[in-house]
Amino acid sequence: MQVLNAGLIGYKFMGRAHSNAFRQVNHFFDSKAKIGLKSICGRDGEAVSKAALKFGFESYDTDWKTLIKRDDIDFVDITAPGNMHREIALMAAAKKKHIFCEKPLAMNAREAKEMWIAAEAAGIRHQVGFNYRFVPAIRLAKRLIDEGKIGTIYHFRALYLQDWIVDPAFPLVWRLDKKIAGSGANGDINAHLIDLARYLLGDIERVSGLQKTFIKKRPMVDMMDGLRATGVDSSTYGDVTVDDASLFLAEFKSGALGSFEATRFASGRKNGMSFEINGSNGSIRFEFERMNELLYYNNEDPSYQRGFKLISATEPEHDYAGNWWPPGHIIGYEHTFVHEMFEFVQAMADGSNASPDFKDGYECCRILDAVDKSAAEREWVNV
Amino acid sequence: MQVLNAGLIGYKFMGRAHSNAFRQVNHFFDSKAKIGLKSICGRDGEAVSKAALKFGFESYDTDWKTLIKRDDIDFVDITAPGNMHREIALMAAAKKKHIFCEKPLAMNAREAKEMWIAAEAAGIRHQVGFNYRFVPAIRLAKRLIDEGKIGTIYHFRALYLQDWIVDPAFPLVWRLDKKIAGSGANGDINAHLIDLARYLLGDIERVSGLQKTFIKKRPMVDMMDGLRATGVDSSTYGDVTVDDASLFLAEFKSGALGSFEATRFASGRKNGMSFEINGSNGSIRFEFERMNELLYYNNEDPSYQRGFKLISATEPEHDYAGNWWPPGHIIGYEHTFVHEMFEFVQAMADGSNASPDFKDGYECCRILDAVDKSAAEREWVNV
Amino acid sequence: MQVLNAGLIGYKFMGRAHSNAFRQVNHFFDSKAKIGLKSICGRDGEAVSKAALKFGFESYDTDWKTLIKRDDIDFVDITAPGNMHREIALMAAAKKKHIFCEKPLAMNAREAKEMWIAAEAAGIRHQVGFNYRFVPAIRLAKRLIDEGKIGTIYHFRALYLQDWIVDPAFPLVWRLDKKIAGSGANGDINAHLIDLARYLLGDIERVSGLQKTFIKKRPMVDMMDGLRATGVDSSTYGDVTVDDASLFLAEFKSGALGSFEATRFASGRKNGMSFEINGSNGSIRFEFERMNELLYYNNEDPSYQRGFKLISATEPEHDYAGNWWPPGHIIGYEHTFVHEMFEFVQAMADGSNASPDFKDGYECCRILDAVDKSAAEREWVNV
Amino acid sequence: MQVLNAGLIGYKFMGRAHSNAFRQVNHFFDSKAKIGLKSICGRDGEAVSKAALKFGFESYDTDWKTLIKRDDIDFVDITAPGNMHREIALMAAAKKKHIFCEKPLAMNAREAKEMWIAAEAAGIRHQVGFNYRFVPAIRLAKRLIDEGKIGTIYHFRALYLQDWIVDPAFPLVWRLDKKIAGSGANGDINAHLIDLARYLLGDIERVSGLQKTFIKKRPMVDMMDGLRATGVDSSTYGDVTVDDASLFLAEFKSGALGSFEATRFASGRKNGMSFEINGSNGSIRFEFERMNELLYYNNEDPSYQRGFKLISATEPEHDYAGNWWPPGHIIGYEHTFVHEMFEFVQAMADGSNASPDFKDGYECCRILDAVDKSAAEREWVNV
Repeated sequence: MQVLNAGLIGYKFMGRAHSNAFRQVNHFFDSKAKIGLKSICGRDGEAVSKAALKFGFESYDTDWKTLIKRDDIDFVDITAPGNMHREIALMAAAKKKHIFCEKPLAMNAREAKEMWIAAEAAGIRHQVGFNYRFVPAIRLAKRLIDEGKIGTIYHFRALYLQDWIVDPAFPLVWRLDKKIAGSGANGDINAHLIDLARYLLGDIERVSGLQKTFIKKRPMVDMMDGLRATGVDSSTYGDVTVDDASLFLAEFKSGALGSFEATRFASGRKNGMSFEINGSNGSIRFEFERMNELLYYNNEDPSYQRGFKLISATEPEHDYAGNWWPPGHIIGYEHTFVHEMFEFVQAMADGSNASPDFKDGYECCRILDAVDKSAAEREWVNV
Repeated sequence: MQVLNAGLIGYKFMGRAHSNAFRQVNHFFDSKAKIGLKSICGRDGEAVSKAALKFGFESYDTDWKTLIKRDDIDFVDITAPGNMHREIALMAAAKKKHIFCEKPLAMNAREAKEMWIAAEAAGIRHQVGFNYRFVPAIRLAKRLIDEGKIGTIYHFRALYLQDWIVDPAFPLVWRLDKKIAGSGANGDINAHLIDLARYLLGDIERVSGLQKTFIKKRPMVDMMDGLRATGVDSSTYGDVTVDDASLFLAEFKSGALGSFEATRFASGRKNGMSFEINGSNGSIRFEFERMNELLYYNNEDPSYQRGFKLISATEPEHDYAGNWWPPGHIIGYEHTFVHEMFEFVQAMADGSNASPDFKDGYECCRILDAVDKSAAEREWVNV
Repeated sequence: MQVLNAGLIGYKFMGRAHSNAFRQVNHFFDSKAKIGLKSICGRDGEAVSKAALKFGFESYDTDWKTLIKRDDIDFVDITAPGNMHREIALMAAAKKKHIFCEKPLAMNAREAKEMWIAAEAAGIRHQVGFNYRFVPAIRLAKRLIDEGKIGTIYHFRALYLQDWIVDPAFPLVWRLDKKIAGSGANGDINAHLIDLARYLLGDIERVSGLQKTFIKKRPMVDMMDGLRATGVDSSTYGDVTVDDASLFLAEFKSGALGSFEATRFASGRKNGMSFEINGSNGSIRFEFERMNELLYYNNEDPSYQRGFKLISATEPEHDYAGNWWPPGHIIGYEHTFVHEMFEFVQAMADGSNASPDFKDGYECCRILDAVDKSAAEREWVNV
Repeated sequence: MQVLNAGLIGYKFMGRAHSNAFRQVNHFFDSKAKIGLKSICGRDGEAVSKAALKFGFESYDTDWKTLIKRDDIDFVDITAPGNMHREIALMAAAKKKHIFCEKPLAMNAREAKEMWIAAEAAGIRHQVGFNYRFVPAIRLAKRLIDEGKIGTIYHFRALYLQDWIVDPAFPLVWRLDKKIAGSGANGDINAHLIDLARYLLGDIERVSGLQKTFIKKRPMVDMMDGLRATGVDSSTYGDVTVDDASLFLAEFKSGALGSFEATRFASGRKNGMSFEINGSNGSIRFEFERMNELLYYNNEDPSYQRGFKLISATEPEHDYAGNWWPPGHIIGYEHTFVHEMFEFVQAMADGSNASPDFKDGYECCRILDAVDKSAAEREWVNV
């Protein structure tokens, strides 16, 4: 069987999730090609060599340019911080490597467009890491919408609530630095909501945003040291340069109204992504912390029997679920990466378009930019 | 319009709930007769006169025999402790007064049968206070079963979990004295589960019970001082003579299997009555603390859309709901009494049989007795 | 005991809820005065006379001016449509009658201010019908906030989701006519969210609104025929002149961010009012369809034990709950009216200020107006 | 690093789960030894060779005796049907291979004891596959109990509800044949509940059981063809020789009361394992389909703040959770196997006792046997 060799850039949280996905595609899915865990890349040679061993890679690199130039690499997987996406992707495209890139695709829509055009011009497969599209329950939501079960959609409302920086003593990690991360809650988590909105309802026309940084100074740390930094020297404070919360109202091209909220200041909410869709024929609700479940309301049920039905998307009829365990034996967060990587492998193997692709990543960035602009200028902005 | 005058015996918790029901039937339901709040009865003249004023009664009595003899009383409502039910009911029947009696109907099946036969012989209407039959969501459960939506029923499992005596310092109130209350968790709360089981599935054939008194001695108090006694002289302890918890397995005549558990030792559970029914075509779940909701699973839904549907039984199509508020505007505990009293008024007004009647009260007592015997003798007992 | 005689204007949905509240205050609360159900008023003499009988009023009137002039009326309770509030209230104030008025207080802030000033000038007690302030679980939310358990509040997000007009065949009832109702979802249900926001967090500084009328023409009916009109002549259509949905983002004076959404187009949502508050020390969540429950997250719980705690606000320690039933025996929608009317009686009896008063009604209208204006002009509007 | 080589017997559902566990221990845990996926064994050479490739094994065997004799195998993992456990385990012990064996350990307590004694005599590590002990939320339950947070335990009630054979057309697979499976719902799923009961509360003293086979004849199939057999020749029916449902009441040595129910006839319940524990200081609730969550009620919370707290056991403070993803990023069913295998590796590597071991497997079988006997003879049976 064909083997497609991966060059994975980044070995922290996302690097761990992606390398697991590579392995699990091979073990649980009948994909058209196998994924070879060829090389993993990071600047710290000692750390990345350990990661290579732990994650099951054959080799490692400390310079992503070297990695991209390797003949034995078929695709590049970019999980580095946002400020590096463009440069890596452009070189990978130039070298005709397929590209999988984490979200948000780029620091802004301009960069994203450049990446998309380069990828298209190179004729490579390209996919962006909107992993929530691959939750079986969300696939089911999509199916119900496509079948007309929801009818004309009037409302989409979505929340992404976290609390990991609610403590003012939490340090100034790279995700709080605009130069590295691009933005805060907006690009990190609103990006997911926006992509799901596009996946399920289509394009957004205009937005009115509201953003805020609640804690403006935080203790300095080695910025690349991740979310769980310790040993902070609390005598030195630096500026938080990204949004802690980003909310916006939206009008979809379809006429539906949207409400979005992303925050890192919702005490008690860990990975509280949720959305609700209301249409003329029914409604849908989803909550990520119970990601195996979808709530569906059907206006056409007999009037004395109407109600939100809690569907466990763990049946063989549900996308991807049949590759795992029997009904009711739930899957978790990491499985979304396995599913997206399975689809990417399929696209690479048969030359079909991947989805969501860089075009989708670009469209998301356009909306993110519009929200930023709208919040800054206090006015509605057309996407 | 015809007025049916009530003589209510008891003015504490149940007295308050029943007198409210009388008034609310008149204001919210189009019943065939109105209820007259004629007299309320209790031994303590001062307390009962205050209750009469508060609850809206025209007069009061301090001797239930006097009350029953009054010509202006059409029906007697018995909310006194269990050890008085029989005597009161027999005299009321002799005087041809209709009778509403709280559950459990009597101290044992023998007494209950005597009451039932006396009531039938007198030609009066008689009803027992199994108020949970009148929860709209439970009526909906009954409807779904009657329509065949659940199919052949395999399982009934029910819990009634409370925690009001989990504190060993809680005093020895009358409900913990076998001579007054008849039994503990068994008669007080298993009685409700048993009645619902009979209402929804039919008769029980045999049982295997398990009972326990976890705290065997408690501080003495004036026993009639209700659930919230204070100022206890903790130097004097008396024996708890009833069961704190009563569990049993059951076989229904239909072939279904039953599991019942009633306890007053479930920390955090206040009025935690719940049940689940599993059949060949579907399932039903109910929880009293969310009493407006019924969960219904339909095996015949399309396979990718199956799930428990949370039906809010607040639609006009749901029994009694149309008499109250618009959909989604929930009702509460007290409404169950309004509904049962509405049905009792209808039965008195047109001479039809009330339901659940003393026969149902008797059948429940037979099962309660069987559970007591089974637990005491550690063997299966036929009902 | 002092009796304060009520003159109730309106006998439909709210008339029924208020008259029930009058009676239940008398029967369940130890108020400083009793409420006399003196007169109920409506234009249709036959209908209102029936209502008087059903609801327990001594008399009825067909002209509200006559009612207000009666010497035996101590307070006027206005549940008529919004376009009549001002005129009735001004005359009642002139006649020194205390006033309870349903929400929204008036058609706009200008009218509301006039009513407030007139009431103050007359020295009467005045209260506006924001009944949700009197849900025990919401009182508990207020208590937790006041005790500092939530800390600095960062977020308030609230939804009021209904679906009663999602069917395009639903007729053009008065609530869909701007001249009578003032506005649609905004004044009818956003008003509740706004009042709760003010109650729990304080004033709002500026808003960005988004409104839409999804179904612009509907079958004509007799407009006063309420929510459940039938026998519609579908050949005649009229214009819906109010908003079907009204969303807005907000900045509070405190610095918190707000997100509000009110819609009548959320299939499956009946009375889906809910809110969440996130602060530096914890969070609170509430859902009206489970109105006895409050969810509370405490950041200071031991780290391995943190979670949202589902508190059943049915304990004696919870406001109003002790007047009803034992813990776990839930109350419903109508009880909120009993509680607000109890507080109004107390204020009338001892001459203290009622709360929420017409000032609160006016402040709410200012925000409603700002949302309307913002939505119409597509710009942020200062309140 | 030391490598412990696995010989896995069985390649269906459990084979897949175990082989995944081997790999994931290596990739996500810092275990004292790595697991080598040395050989997988099944009778059908073609099928098992494919499984070896898919699951990542170096080699395969078609005769388990050959496998056990291999010098390059350090431990044997038995996932074959119950009727083979004893023979395999005895030979493995004789060859001094460590043994991991799926539950129930054996066909009955006699066999289980023989296995336990053989394993002990051989000085090998032995563990039985009660994977639910390794759910982080259940570990948290154990911790709360051990810390005294629950106090004296009064009640344990547990359900294991499934519906995979509710359709009478579902074929006669091997799990429905007593000769192969040993028993039905009792050994398959009550076994899990019993082990959890022992883990959390200690030993059971006596039981009263009730069992039933609702559908007594089913279409014949190739019995080893698993749960999802198709192409059934419906003209041939065979006898179901195991219980469809198995319920029992129990008394624990500690004095607590237990209620257990296992059934395969609960429509809508897929893997509906749940339990509740009530003690003098608090309560605990768990539901497997939301396996990341634990509900905890603390009697010592301030009285106005008491409630069941929903703890997401995904924090670094929760056992195993720190090896996976950030808080709120849930894990699934398969992770329980990774955790149990991690513990087994640790025990093999440092020679400590594994837990739960064959002694625990034997104790569970004793209780299973007692339940079977009690149900058959309709009497209480001492364990």
